Amino acid sequence: MKIIRSTQNDQIKQIHKLKQTKYQKKFGAYLLEGPHEVQEAIQAHAPIKHLLITEGIQLSFATEATEIDMIQIEPSVSAYLSDTKATQGIFAVIKIAEQTLPTDLAGGWILLDALQDPGNLGTIIRTADALGLKGVILGEGTVSVYNPKVLRALQGSQFHLQIVTQSLLTVLTALKQQQIPVFGTALTPNAVGIGQIPATSNFAVVIGNEGNGVSDAILAQTTQNIVIPIRGKAESLNAAVAAAIIMYHFSQG
Amino acid sequence: MKIIRSTQNDQIKQIHKLKQTKYQKKFGAYLLEGPHEVQEAIQAHAPIKHLLITEGIQLSFATEATEIDMIQIEPSVSAYLSDTKATQGIFAVIKIAEQTLPTDLAGGWILLDALQDPGNLGTIIRTADALGLKGVILGEGTVSVYNPKVLRALQGSQFHLQIVTQSLLTVLTALKQQQIPVFGTALTPNAVGIGQIPATSNFAVVIGNEGNGVSDAILAQTTQNIVIPIRGKAESLNAAVAAAIIMYHFSQG
Repeated sequence: MKIIRSTQNDQIKQIHKLKQTKYQKKFGAYLLEGPHEVQEAIQAHAPIKHLLITEGIQLSFATEATEIDMIQIEPSVSAYLSDTKATQGIFAVIKIAEQTLPTDLAGGWILLDALQDPGNLGTIIRTADALGLKGVILGEGTVSVYNPKVLRALQGSQFHLQIVTQSLLTVLTALKQQQIPVFGTALTPNAVGIGQIPATSNFAVVIGNEGNGVSDAILAQTTQNIVIPIRGKAESLNAAVAAAIIMYHFSQG
Repeated sequence: MKIIRSTQNDQIKQIHKLKQTKYQKKFGAYLLEGPHEVQEAIQAHAPIKHLLITEGIQLSFATEATEIDMIQIEPSVSAYLSDTKATQGIFAVIKIAEQTLPTDLAGGWILLDALQDPGNLGTIIRTADALGLKGVILGEGTVSVYNPKVLRALQGSQFHLQIVTQSLLTVLTALKQQQIPVFGTALTPNAVGIGQIPATSNFAVVIGNEGNGVSDAILAQTTQNIVIPIRGKAESLNAAVAAAIIMYHFSQG
């Protein structure tokens, strides 16, 4: 196994860059951190280019070592690559394999219209995974799924469902062609309370930007716009909370 | 109006300390930031000791200035007091008035067992406010509601519902005496799927620590333990998301 002892090593410097969106795009790969996350990547047969393990750390899971390039790193290198103060010392460089919309769209979908907060994106994808949705569409202006803060909130859920970066209007057209209702979340007068919409296994819900909500261009193209009735004095719900409530509502069916 | 131009001013130094839990306890006050938050405090007749307004900033809401001690501060002082990079320059020092459990407990309650993450606490209280719950109980080991990160996520919801810091076992006893069912969230074998519990306007739900869940001592004293069925491959839900789904489930009735 190769051993790297210095943060000045060229390969380590390049791997470090894979935490930034611009280098992720340039090199087509991202850096994943954490034993649980890396184990999920291996189980999902994700395209792992390198597995980096800190000296003295034991892998708690099996790998088919012959297929994966393993690199041992010193704790100083691990601290350099890590995003957390107490790193567990396990990393993987994973090739970005952009997913495209599947032919059969049956199932539940969340469509994100310029969602900005990395924690919200990670939480929404993880919730969609837990509640058995088919996938999440990252529309224009949505934070990258390979942002380190998103990856931390995801806890490996990116390997469990479809995550597609695509224009929302294109996706809306495809969903409607397959008779899958698309619900926009909005405070507009024509939005109906979510309790009036029956649960269904085939649905798509558009969640908007934290400050501005779903854009008017999208709201004009939905099957129906919906709202979670506010009974108290708070003016709105957090985007990840609103998404979770709506996903739960539909998936009860 | 008094004008303070220096971050070295003794009163400003003391106000700055009110961002830390130990000084909040010592002086019985906390620092609230943001025009929306301060407006909510004024509307709720919260015990405001001082209102701090940066030079050149106009208040977008009315105050009965004769009742509140107003202090004008320079932008450098505002930047020193702020928790954000782009402060809006409005602050209030508010006396901490610890709430006690009301006599009539009818309504919905969230009980928090050692919840650690400030963002989760703020989001849970804000969701409880939006969904019309009666209050949130902060049990032993739960992060302080006056933590600046909690206050930011709250967006003023602390002025809309009961927020009581108290031993959960004491609260459980009081709830059960009033025939209000207490549900623990747990992955234990005796937990039932939430879909099997009918919606009800009187309920209490215990949400646990992010890593360890609800303690066994509490789970043994609940009316019933419940679980949100996981249909996908994610191992768990974020605590604020789980709380939101359960609150929504019960408040549909």
